[in-house]
Amino acid sequence: MRLAKQTILRLFQYREFLILAKSIGIKNVYSDTLAEALGSSATQVRKDFSLFGITGNKRAGYQLDDLLSQLNELLGKNEKQKVIIAGAGNLAKALMQYEGFKKEGIEIVALFDNDPVKCDPQNDPPILPIEDLYNFVSEKQVELGVIAVPYYVAQQILDLMIVAGIKGVLNFAPIYLKAPKDFFINDMNLRLELETVAYLIKTRTKAGVHKESS
Amino acid sequence: MRLAKQTILRLFQYREFLILAKSIGIKNVYSDTLAEALGSSATQVRKDFSLFGITGNKRAGYQLDDLLSQLNELLGKNEKQKVIIAGAGNLAKALMQYEGFKKEGIEIVALFDNDPVKCDPQNDPPILPIEDLYNFVSEKQVELGVIAVPYYVAQQILDLMIVAGIKGVLNFAPIYLKAPKDFFINDMNLRLELETVAYLIKTRTKAGVHKESS
Repeated sequence: MRLAKQTILRLFQYREFLILAKSIGIKNVYSDTLAEALGSSATQVRKDFSLFGITGNKRAGYQLDDLLSQLNELLGKNEKQKVIIAGAGNLAKALMQYEGFKKEGIEIVALFDNDPVKCDPQNDPPILPIEDLYNFVSEKQVELGVIAVPYYVAQQILDLMIVAGIKGVLNFAPIYLKAPKDFFINDMNLRLELETVAYLIKTRTKAGVHKESS
Repeated sequence: MRLAKQTILRLFQYREFLILAKSIGIKNVYSDTLAEALGSSATQVRKDFSLFGITGNKRAGYQLDDLLSQLNELLGKNEKQKVIIAGAGNLAKALMQYEGFKKEGIEIVALFDNDPVKCDPQNDPPILPIEDLYNFVSEKQVELGVIAVPYYVAQQILDLMIVAGIKGVLNFAPIYLKAPKDFFINDMNLRLELETVAYLIKTRTKAGVHKESS
């Protein structure tokens, strides 16, 4: 049994907001405040929290420290999670420099690439040949991976990751990857996401062309 | 009235698959085939198509050319859509090299950055100072944008884009941006997406800790 992905995303967003709010001296927060800051509804916020037995006080809202420590416990912030990235191109570089990645409990421990020119074992984190992936992952017991390789090698890389002990990936390759049922794949097809915006813009200007769906 | 984002994403995925299927000589496709290749269900495929009045034949399935031309019409493939990217860092570079971006009807017409060192008007596409964004966008009538700037300037850049005539963005800044109701924002918080996978992996090993939600 798992939480829906969208719920988890919101919980992480709540926590980010609470850390900021705490830093400016706020002691109590209201579901309305959280909803406004994150573009959600107060009902949604209360529903999310009640799932975990977190309840607020109608007048005083939620006690910030309480809420934060409950979210921390829930989201397991204190455990550092190691991640490897397959593919040492621009996307990997972008991820390495992504704001907040480093300090947020996620540590990129190695990158892997099949291009010898890109490999650099002295780099921090090391950039290693793809042949080393299996040994590295199984020795260091890494469970989290990122697939940032071209689509035509993505399935092969995923298979290798699974055998090595990876339990879930963030996948940027624009194809549908096959994996065992208990393996978690989070697909990020950036082109499709951009095309979706393009489509919505185009259709917005042609009123009433499409039926609503869900 | 709009299609749900997930439906549109699937339609683009169907089309991608059909283009590949056509290239290897397939003439008719079944909803089962599409579902298998894309990790969906046949019911979902039929439901998606029926939204647009596309119906198959029980024995012969869908006629591929027909289906493809209907999807092309629907998704407006033939119109080229111009896009600008604010922020000329690694993420922008990754997007520029993202497989298939170029040939898929989306043309990156300019990048903008406030770092003079990164600017290069001779580059293809040009990398221009952020001060030029307004004039460029309004003159070239660009409607689609990508926000790949640090989070603390993201709202400011979005405001500038909106005034200039941009109608929707793909946003990589990890904050909730405010915009008019008819403006479309597609948020891609890569760190949260990775944290979500990390969370799912961790909780999977602790059975029965959390309640299911939707």
